[in-house]
Amino acid sequence: MSSSAGYTPTDRTVPTRARERASYDKELVHAILDEGYLCHLGFVRDGAPVVLPTLYGRVGETLYVHGSTGSRPLRAAGQAEDPGLPVCLTVTHVDGLVLARSGFHHSINYRSVVVHGTARPVIGDDARREAVDALVNHVLPDRTEGARGANAKELAATAVLAIDLNEVSAKVRSGGVNDEPEDYELPYWAGVIPVRTAYGTPQPDDRLAPGTEVPAHITDFLATRS
Amino acid sequence: MSSSAGYTPTDRTVPTRARERASYDKELVHAILDEGYLCHLGFVRDGAPVVLPTLYGRVGETLYVHGSTGSRPLRAAGQAEDPGLPVCLTVTHVDGLVLARSGFHHSINYRSVVVHGTARPVIGDDARREAVDALVNHVLPDRTEGARGANAKELAATAVLAIDLNEVSAKVRSGGVNDEPEDYELPYWAGVIPVRTAYGTPQPDDRLAPGTEVPAHITDFLATRS
Repeated sequence: MSSSAGYTPTDRTVPTRARERASYDKELVHAILDEGYLCHLGFVRDGAPVVLPTLYGRVGETLYVHGSTGSRPLRAAGQAEDPGLPVCLTVTHVDGLVLARSGFHHSINYRSVVVHGTARPVIGDDARREAVDALVNHVLPDRTEGARGANAKELAATAVLAIDLNEVSAKVRSGGVNDEPEDYELPYWAGVIPVRTAYGTPQPDDRLAPGTEVPAHITDFLATRS
Repeated sequence: MSSSAGYTPTDRTVPTRARERASYDKELVHAILDEGYLCHLGFVRDGAPVVLPTLYGRVGETLYVHGSTGSRPLRAAGQAEDPGLPVCLTVTHVDGLVLARSGFHHSINYRSVVVHGTARPVIGDDARREAVDALVNHVLPDRTEGARGANAKELAATAVLAIDLNEVSAKVRSGGVNDEPEDYELPYWAGVIPVRTAYGTPQPDDRLAPGTEVPAHITDFLATRS
Protein backbone atom coordinates (compact mmCIF):
# COMPACT_ATOMS: atom_id res chain seq x y z
CA MET A 1 0.00 0.00 0.00
CA SER A 2 1.42 3.36 -0.97
CA SER A 3 2.10 5.90 1.72
CA SER A 4 -0.20 8.37 -0.01
CA ALA A 5 -3.25 6.19 0.58
CA GLY A 6 -5.48 7.69 3.22
CA TYR A 7 -8.86 7.55 4.87
CA THR A 8 -11.37 10.19 3.82
CA PRO A 9 -11.80 12.78 6.58
CA THR A 10 -15.33 13.28 7.91
CA ASP A 11 -16.95 15.70 10.31
CA ARG A 12 -16.25 13.21 13.11
CA THR A 13 -12.58 12.68 12.29
CA VAL A 14 -11.55 16.31 11.74
CA PRO A 15 -10.72 17.79 15.16
CA THR A 16 -12.04 21.21 16.09
CA ARG A 17 -8.55 22.20 17.22
CA ALA A 18 -4.89 21.11 16.83
CA ARG A 19 -5.73 19.94 13.29
CA GLU A 20 -2.05 19.77 12.45
CA ARG A 21 -1.79 16.75 14.75
CA ALA A 22 -4.42 14.77 12.83
CA SER A 23 -3.55 12.33 10.04
CA TYR A 24 -5.54 10.06 7.77
CA ASP A 25 -2.55 8.14 6.42
CA LYS A 26 -3.21 4.41 6.30
CA GLU A 27 0.37 3.37 6.93
CA LEU A 28 0.54 5.52 10.05
CA VAL A 29 -2.83 4.24 11.27
CA HIS A 30 -1.81 0.61 10.68
CA ALA A 31 1.54 1.11 12.44
CA ILE A 32 -0.13 2.60 15.53
CA LEU A 33 -2.74 -0.16 15.59
CA ASP A 34 -0.17 -2.92 15.10
CA GLU A 35 2.10 -1.71 17.91
CA GLY A 36 -0.69 -2.29 20.43
CA TYR A 37 -3.16 -4.96 21.40
CA LEU A 38 -5.35 -3.13 23.93
CA CYS A 39 -8.07 -0.78 22.75
CA HIS A 40 -10.79 1.13 24.55
CA LEU A 41 -14.10 0.22 22.96
CA GLY A 42 -16.99 2.64 23.36
CA PHE A 43 -20.64 1.94 22.75
CA VAL A 44 -23.98 3.30 23.96
CA ARG A 45 -26.15 1.39 26.43
CA ASP A 46 -29.49 2.79 27.60
CA GLY A 47 -28.45 6.16 26.19
CA ALA A 48 -25.23 6.36 28.21
CA PRO A 49 -21.65 5.80 27.04
CA VAL A 50 -19.69 2.71 28.08
CA VAL A 51 -15.91 2.40 27.54
CA LEU A 52 -14.30 -0.99 28.13
CA PRO A 53 -10.69 -2.09 27.66
CA THR A 54 -10.42 -5.08 25.37
CA LEU A 55 -7.99 -6.82 23.03
CA TYR A 56 -8.19 -6.36 19.27
CA GLY A 57 -6.67 -7.75 16.11
CA ARG A 58 -6.30 -6.42 12.57
CA VAL A 59 -6.58 -8.13 9.20
CA GLY A 60 -6.17 -5.60 6.40
CA GLU A 61 -8.87 -2.96 6.79
CA THR A 62 -10.85 -4.84 9.42
CA LEU A 63 -10.44 -4.86 13.20
CA TYR A 64 -11.72 -7.69 15.37
CA VAL A 65 -12.72 -7.67 19.00
CA HIS A 66 -14.05 -10.64 20.89
CA GLY A 67 -15.60 -11.70 24.13
CA SER A 68 -17.89 -14.18 25.78
CA THR A 69 -21.16 -14.72 23.96
CA GLY A 70 -22.73 -13.60 27.25
CA SER A 71 -21.01 -10.22 27.48
CA ARG A 72 -23.10 -7.10 27.04
CA PRO A 73 -21.52 -5.42 23.98
CA LEU A 74 -21.29 -8.73 22.16
CA ARG A 75 -24.93 -9.48 22.86
CA ALA A 76 -25.94 -5.98 21.84
CA ALA A 77 -24.11 -6.26 18.54
CA GLY A 78 -25.52 -9.71 17.91
CA GLN A 79 -29.03 -8.39 18.41
CA ALA A 80 -28.47 -5.14 16.58
CA GLU A 81 -30.33 -4.47 13.38
CA ASP A 82 -28.31 -3.88 10.26
CA PRO A 83 -25.91 -2.00 9.99
CA GLY A 84 -24.72 -3.12 13.46
CA LEU A 85 -23.77 -1.59 16.79
CA PRO A 86 -22.26 1.92 16.62
CA VAL A 87 -18.86 1.85 18.27
CA CYS A 88 -15.80 4.02 18.72
CA LEU A 89 -12.54 2.10 19.11
CA THR A 90 -9.51 4.02 20.36
CA VAL A 91 -5.86 2.96 20.72
CA THR A 92 -3.29 5.21 22.41
CA HIS A 93 0.46 4.90 22.97
CA VAL A 94 2.18 7.30 25.38
CA ASP A 95 5.68 8.34 24.26
CA GLY A 96 6.65 11.02 26.74
CA LEU A 97 5.75 13.42 29.55
CA VAL A 98 6.15 16.99 28.28
CA LEU A 99 7.09 19.16 31.27
CA ALA A 100 6.88 22.84 30.40
CA ARG A 101 7.87 25.92 32.38
CA SER A 102 4.17 26.75 32.75
CA GLY A 103 1.51 24.39 34.01
CA PHE A 104 -0.64 25.39 31.04
CA HIS A 105 1.80 23.95 28.47
CA HIS A 106 2.25 20.59 30.16
CA SER A 107 1.31 17.79 27.78
CA ILE A 108 2.16 14.28 26.76
CA ASN A 109 3.68 12.94 23.59
CA TYR A 110 1.40 10.26 22.20
CA ARG A 111 0.15 8.48 19.12
CA SER A 112 -3.53 7.56 18.96
CA VAL A 113 -6.02 6.13 16.49
CA VAL A 114 -9.77 6.68 16.74
CA VAL A 115 -12.06 4.44 14.68
CA HIS A 116 -15.73 5.33 14.26
CA GLY A 117 -17.88 2.60 12.84
CA THR A 118 -20.34 -0.17 13.38
CA ALA A 119 -19.52 -3.55 14.85
CA ARG A 120 -21.08 -6.53 13.16
CA PRO A 121 -20.99 -10.14 14.37
CA VAL A 122 -18.61 -12.40 12.49
CA ILE A 123 -20.56 -15.41 11.21
CA GLY A 124 -19.24 -18.79 10.15
CA ASP A 125 -16.56 -21.02 11.69
CA ASP A 126 -13.84 -20.26 9.13
CA ALA A 127 -14.27 -16.50 9.43
CA ARG A 128 -14.44 -16.69 13.21
CA ARG A 129 -11.33 -18.88 13.36
CA GLU A 130 -9.42 -16.38 11.21
CA ALA A 131 -10.57 -13.57 13.50
CA VAL A 132 -9.60 -15.23 16.79
CA ASP A 133 -6.23 -16.23 15.31
CA ALA A 134 -5.73 -12.59 14.33
CA LEU A 135 -6.49 -11.55 17.91
CA VAL A 136 -3.90 -13.97 19.32
CA ASN A 137 -1.28 -12.97 16.75
CA HIS A 138 -1.90 -9.30 17.46
CA VAL A 139 -0.82 -9.77 21.07
CA LEU A 140 2.34 -11.48 19.85
CA PRO A 141 3.24 -12.03 16.17
CA ASP A 142 3.12 -15.69 15.02
CA ARG A 143 1.87 -16.77 18.44
CA THR A 144 -0.65 -19.18 16.85
CA GLU A 145 2.32 -21.23 15.63
CA GLY A 146 3.08 -22.07 19.26
CA ALA A 147 -0.38 -22.70 20.66
CA ARG A 148 -3.34 -25.01 20.10
CA GLY A 149 -5.95 -23.53 17.79
CA ALA A 150 -9.57 -23.02 18.84
CA ASN A 151 -11.78 -26.10 18.85
CA ALA A 152 -15.48 -26.16 17.98
CA LYS A 153 -16.61 -25.70 21.59
CA GLU A 154 -14.31 -22.71 22.10
CA LEU A 155 -15.39 -21.10 18.84
CA ALA A 156 -19.04 -21.53 19.84
CA ALA A 157 -18.41 -19.78 23.16
CA THR A 158 -16.64 -16.82 21.57
CA ALA A 159 -18.48 -13.89 20.05
CA VAL A 160 -16.43 -11.96 17.52
CA LEU A 161 -17.18 -8.50 16.19
CA ALA A 162 -15.71 -6.93 13.07
CA ILE A 163 -15.25 -3.19 12.55
CA ASP A 164 -14.17 -1.89 9.16
CA LEU A 165 -11.55 0.84 8.93
CA ASN A 166 -13.35 3.58 7.04
CA GLU A 167 -13.87 6.57 9.32
CA VAL A 168 -10.46 6.67 10.95
CA SER A 169 -7.94 9.23 12.10
CA ALA A 170 -4.59 9.20 13.84
CA LYS A 171 -3.35 11.93 16.12
CA VAL A 172 0.28 12.44 17.04
CA ARG A 173 2.00 14.81 19.45
CA SER A 174 5.79 14.59 19.39
CA GLY A 175 8.80 16.75 20.06
CA GLY A 176 9.70 19.07 22.86
CA VAL A 177 8.29 21.78 25.06
CA ASN A 178 6.38 24.78 23.67
CA ASP A 179 6.46 27.56 26.24
CA GLU A 180 5.29 31.16 26.09
CA PRO A 181 8.10 33.47 24.90
CA GLU A 182 8.31 35.30 28.22
CA ASP A 183 8.53 32.06 30.21
CA TYR A 184 11.90 30.93 28.85
CA GLU A 185 13.62 33.15 31.41
CA LEU A 186 11.97 31.36 34.33
CA PRO A 187 14.31 29.30 36.51
CA TYR A 188 12.31 26.10 36.06
CA TRP A 189 13.57 22.84 34.56
CA ALA A 190 11.68 21.94 31.38
CA GLY A 191 11.98 18.98 29.07
CA VAL A 192 10.57 15.61 28.12
CA ILE A 193 10.67 12.35 30.07
CA PRO A 194 10.55 9.51 27.51
CA VAL A 195 7.89 6.85 28.17
CA ARG A 196 7.70 3.40 26.62
CA THR A 197 6.13 0.02 27.20
CA ALA A 198 8.80 -2.35 28.55
CA TYR A 199 8.65 -6.14 28.36
CA GLY A 200 10.38 -8.26 31.01
CA THR A 201 11.87 -11.73 31.04
CA PRO A 202 9.26 -14.40 30.17
CA GLN A 203 8.07 -16.19 33.33
CA PRO A 204 7.43 -19.85 32.50
CA ASP A 205 4.27 -21.55 33.72
CA ASP A 206 4.85 -23.77 36.77
CA ARG A 207 3.69 -26.85 34.91
CA LEU A 208 5.85 -26.36 31.85
CA ALA A 209 7.46 -29.60 30.69
CA PRO A 210 11.18 -29.58 31.56
CA GLY A 211 13.36 -28.50 28.67
CA THR A 212 10.63 -26.50 26.91
CA GLU A 213 12.54 -23.54 25.46
CA VAL A 214 11.19 -20.04 24.94
CA PRO A 215 10.26 -20.16 21.24
CA ALA A 216 11.66 -17.91 18.52
CA HIS A 217 8.41 -15.94 18.03
CA ILE A 218 8.76 -14.75 21.64
CA THR A 219 12.48 -13.97 21.58
CA ASP A 220 12.01 -12.21 18.22
CA PHE A 221 9.19 -10.10 19.67
CA LEU A 222 11.22 -9.15 22.72
CA ALA A 223 14.19 -8.21 20.52
CA THR A 224 12.02 -5.71 18.62
CA ARG A 225 10.65 -4.19 21.84
CA SER A 226 13.83 -3.86 23.91
CA MET B 1 -9.94 6.01 54.62
CA SER B 2 -10.32 2.42 55.78
CA SER B 3 -9.68 -0.38 53.36
CA SER B 4 -13.24 -1.61 53.87
CA ALA B 5 -14.73 1.52 52.31
CA GLY B 6 -16.19 0.77 48.92
CA TYR B 7 -18.37 2.07 46.12
CA THR B 8 -21.89 0.69 45.96
CA PRO B 9 -22.21 -1.75 43.04
CA THR B 10 -24.88 -0.96 40.45
CA ASP B 11 -26.26 -2.75 37.44
CA ARG B 12 -23.69 -0.94 35.31
CA THR B 13 -20.68 -1.80 37.48
CA VAL B 14 -21.40 -5.49 38.10
CA PRO B 15 -20.00 -7.43 35.13
CA THR B 16 -22.08 -10.13 33.50
CA ARG B 17 -19.10 -12.48 33.70
CA ALA B 18 -15.75 -12.87 35.52
CA ARG B 19 -17.33 -11.21 38.56
CA GLU B 20 -14.46 -12.40 40.73
CA ARG B 21 -12.23 -9.90 38.93
CA ALA B 22 -14.41 -6.91 39.88
CA SER B 23 -13.78 -4.78 42.97
CA TYR B 24 -15.44 -1.74 44.51
CA ASP B 25 -12.67 -1.02 47.03
CA LYS B 26 -11.85 2.68 47.17
CA GLU B 27 -8.17 2.22 48.01
CA LEU B 28 -7.70 -0.09 45.02
CA VAL B 29 -9.60 2.29 42.73
CA HIS B 30 -7.57 5.27 43.91
CA ALA B 31 -4.28 3.38 43.52
CA ILE B 32 -5.10 2.42 39.92
CA LEU B 33 -6.22 5.95 39.09
CA ASP B 34 -3.17 7.55 40.72
CA GLU B 35 -0.67 5.34 38.88
CA GLY B 36 -1.87 6.75 35.57
CA TYR B 37 -2.57 10.08 33.94
CA LEU B 38 -4.17 9.05 30.65
CA CYS B 39 -7.81 8.02 30.56
CA HIS B 40 -10.17 7.17 27.73
CA LEU B 41 -13.21 9.40 28.03
CA GLY B 42 -16.43 8.26 26.39
CA PHE B 43 -19.48 10.34 25.65
CA VAL B 44 -22.36 10.29 23.18
CA ARG B 45 -22.53 12.68 20.23
CA ASP B 46 -25.46 12.59 17.80
CA GLY B 47 -26.41 9.20 19.22
CA ALA B 48 -23.01 7.63 18.54
CA PRO B 49 -20.20 6.85 20.99
CA VAL B 50 -16.98 8.87 21.02
CA VAL B 51 -13.87 7.74 22.94
CA LEU B 52 -10.98 10.19 23.27
CA PRO B 53 -7.68 9.85 25.13
CA THR B 54 -7.16 12.68 27.58
CA LEU B 55 -5.32 13.52 30.79
CA TYR B 56 -7.06 13.47 34.16
CA GLY B 57 -6.42 14.42 37.76
CA ARG B 58 -7.95 13.33 41.05
CA VAL B 59 -8.79 15.28 44.21
CA GLY B 60 -10.46 13.02 46.74
CA GLU B 61 -13.59 11.58 45.18
CA THR B 62 -13.57 13.88 42.15
CA LEU B 63 -11.82 13.43 38.81
CA TYR B 64 -10.99 16.36 36.55
CA VAL B 65 -10.48 16.45 32.80
CA HIS B 66 -9.76 19.55 30.80
CA GLY B 67 -9.47 20.88 27.31
CA SER B 68 -9.84 23.90 25.13
CA THR B 69 -13.05 25.80 25.63
CA GLY B 70 -13.57 25.14 21.91
CA SER B 71 -13.35 21.36 22.06
CA ARG B 72 -16.47 19.30 21.45
CA PRO B 73 -16.91 17.41 24.74
CA LEU B 74 -16.15 20.50 26.79
CA ARG B 75 -18.65 22.54 24.83
CA ALA B 76 -21.24 19.77 25.12
CA ALA B 77 -20.81 19.59 28.88
CA GLY B 78 -20.90 23.35 29.22
CA GLN B 79 -24.17 23.48 27.32
CA ALA B 80 -25.67 20.43 28.95
CA GLU B 81 -28.69 20.81 31.15
CA ASP B 82 -28.32 19.69 34.72
CA PRO B 83 -27.16 17.04 35.72
CA GLY B 84 -24.41 17.34 33.10
CA LEU B 85 -22.96 15.28 30.25
CA PRO B 86 -23.12 11.49 30.71
CA VAL B 87 -19.60 10.11 30.45
CA CYS B 88 -17.68 6.90 31.01
CA LEU B 89 -14.05 7.38 32.02
CA THR B 90 -11.77 4.34 31.85
CA VAL B 91 -8.15 3.88 32.96
CA THR B 92 -6.20 0.69 32.18
CA HIS B 93 -2.71 -0.51 33.10
CA VAL B 94 -1.29 -3.57 31.32
CA ASP B 95 0.85 -5.78 33.58
CA GLY B 96 1.55 -8.81 31.44
CA LEU B 97 0.92 -10.88 28.33
CA VAL B 98 -0.58 -14.22 29.36
CA LEU B 99 0.50 -16.79 26.79
CA ALA B 100 -1.41 -20.04 27.23
CA ARG B 101 -1.03 -23.42 25.53
CA SER B 102 -4.32 -22.77 23.75
CA GLY B 103 -5.19 -19.68 21.77
CA PHE B 104 -8.51 -19.54 23.63
CA HIS B 105 -6.86 -18.97 27.02
CA HIS B 106 -4.56 -16.17 25.91
CA SER B 107 -5.16 -13.06 27.95
CA ILE B 108 -3.46 -10.07 29.50
CA ASN B 109 -2.85 -9.18 33.11
CA TYR B 110 -4.27 -5.74 33.75
CA ARG B 111 -5.80 -3.37 36.26
CA SER B 112 -8.60 -1.10 35.10
CA VAL B 113 -11.08 1.35 36.56
CA VAL B 114 -14.35 2.27 34.89
CA VAL B 115 -16.19 5.38 36.11
CA HIS B 116 -19.79 6.02 35.06
CA GLY B 117 -21.07 9.46 35.79
CA THR B 118 -21.89 12.92 34.59
CA ALA B 119 -19.35 15.60 33.78
CA ARG B 120 -20.16 19.08 35.01
CA PRO B 121 -18.25 22.27 34.21
CA VAL B 122 -16.06 23.57 37.02
CA ILE B 123 -17.03 27.18 37.72
CA GLY B 124 -15.01 29.87 39.47
CA ASP B 125 -11.34 30.76 39.21
CA ASP B 126 -10.27 29.21 42.51
CA ALA B 127 -11.98 25.90 41.79
CA ARG B 128 -10.63 25.87 38.25
CA ARG B 129 -7.11 26.65 39.43
CA GLU B 130 -7.26 23.79 41.93
CA ALA B 131 -8.46 21.48 39.18
CA VAL B 132 -5.78 22.39 36.64
CA ASP B 133 -3.10 22.11 39.34
CA ALA B 134 -4.45 18.64 40.14
CA LEU B 135 -4.14 17.72 36.46
CA VAL B 136 -0.50 18.83 36.32
CA ASN B 137 0.36 17.10 39.59
CA HIS B 138 -1.30 13.91 38.41
CA VAL B 139 1.13 13.65 35.51
CA LEU B 140 4.01 14.10 37.96
CA PRO B 141 3.62 14.54 41.74
CA ASP B 142 4.49 18.04 43.04
CA ARG B 143 5.12 19.27 39.50
CA THR B 144 3.32 22.56 40.19
CA GLU B 145 6.16 23.41 42.61
CA GLY B 146 8.48 23.60 39.62
CA ALA B 147 6.33 25.40 37.07
CA ARG B 148 4.50 28.71 36.67
CA GLY B 149 0.86 28.53 37.71
CA ALA B 150 -1.99 29.37 35.35
CA ASN B 151 -2.68 33.06 34.75
CA ALA B 152 -6.10 34.59 34.17
CA LYS B 153 -5.87 34.32 30.38
CA GLU B 154 -4.90 30.65 30.52
CA LEU B 155 -7.64 29.83 33.02
CA ALA B 156 -10.18 31.56 30.78
CA ALA B 157 -9.09 29.45 27.80
CA THR B 158 -9.32 26.18 29.69
CA ALA B 159 -12.56 24.31 30.19
CA VAL B 160 -12.51 21.93 33.13
CA LEU B 161 -14.98 19.16 33.81
CA ALA B 162 -15.51 17.39 37.13
CA ILE B 163 -16.75 13.81 37.47
CA ASP B 164 -17.60 12.46 40.92
CA LEU B 165 -16.52 8.96 41.89
CA ASN B 166 -19.81 7.27 42.76
CA GLU B 167 -20.55 4.56 40.23
CA VAL B 168 -17.10 3.02 39.98
CA SER B 169 -15.53 -0.41 39.65
CA ALA B 170 -12.04 -1.81 39.32
CA LYS B 171 -11.20 -4.96 37.44
CA VAL B 172 -7.98 -6.89 37.92
CA ARG B 173 -6.54 -9.94 36.15
CA SER B 174 -3.28 -11.18 37.62
CA GLY B 175 -1.32 -14.38 37.97
CA GLY B 176 -0.41 -17.09 35.54
CA VAL B 177 -1.82 -19.21 32.77
CA ASN B 178 -5.10 -21.12 33.12
CA ASP B 179 -5.15 -23.91 30.56
CA GLU B 180 -7.58 -26.75 29.98
CA PRO B 181 -6.53 -29.86 31.94
CA GLU B 182 -5.83 -31.90 28.81
CA ASP B 183 -3.63 -29.15 27.31
CA TYR B 184 -0.88 -29.29 29.91
CA GLU B 185 0.68 -32.19 28.01
CA LEU B 186 1.07 -30.14 24.83
CA PRO B 187 4.65 -29.34 23.83
CA TYR B 188 4.03 -25.57 23.78
CA TRP B 189 5.78 -22.95 25.89
CA ALA B 190 3.35 -21.15 28.19
CA GLY B 191 3.87 -18.37 30.67
CA VAL B 192 3.62 -14.65 31.28
CA ILE B 193 5.68 -11.82 29.77
CA PRO B 194 5.72 -8.97 32.31
CA VAL B 195 4.75 -5.56 30.92
CA ARG B 196 5.33 -2.21 32.54
CA THR B 197 5.53 1.48 31.68
CA ALA B 198 9.19 2.53 31.62
CA TYR B 199 10.46 6.08 32.04
CA GLY B 200 13.73 7.15 30.40
CA THR B 201 16.32 9.78 31.19
CA PRO B 202 14.82 13.30 31.22
CA GLN B 203 15.68 15.16 28.00
CA PRO B 204 16.24 18.84 28.82
CA ASP B 205 14.68 21.54 26.65
CA ASP B 206 17.16 23.10 24.19
CA ARG B 207 16.66 26.51 25.73
CA LEU B 208 17.16 25.46 29.33
CA ALA B 209 19.32 27.93 31.27
CA PRO B 210 22.79 26.41 31.87
CA GLY B 211 23.11 24.81 35.27
CA THR B 212 19.38 24.15 35.70
CA GLU B 213 19.34 20.81 37.50
CA VAL B 214 16.66 18.16 37.22
CA PRO B 215 14.54 18.92 40.31
CA ALA B 216 13.84 16.50 43.17
CA HIS B 217 10.18 16.01 42.26
CA ILE B 218 11.35 14.49 38.95
CA THR B 219 14.18 12.34 40.35
CA ASP B 220 11.85 11.16 43.13
CA PHE B 221 9.20 10.20 40.58
CA LEU B 222 11.69 8.30 38.44
CA ALA B 223 13.00 6.48 41.51
CA THR B 224 9.50 5.17 42.26
CA ARG B 225 8.96 4.03 38.66
CA SER B 226 12.27 2.35 37.91
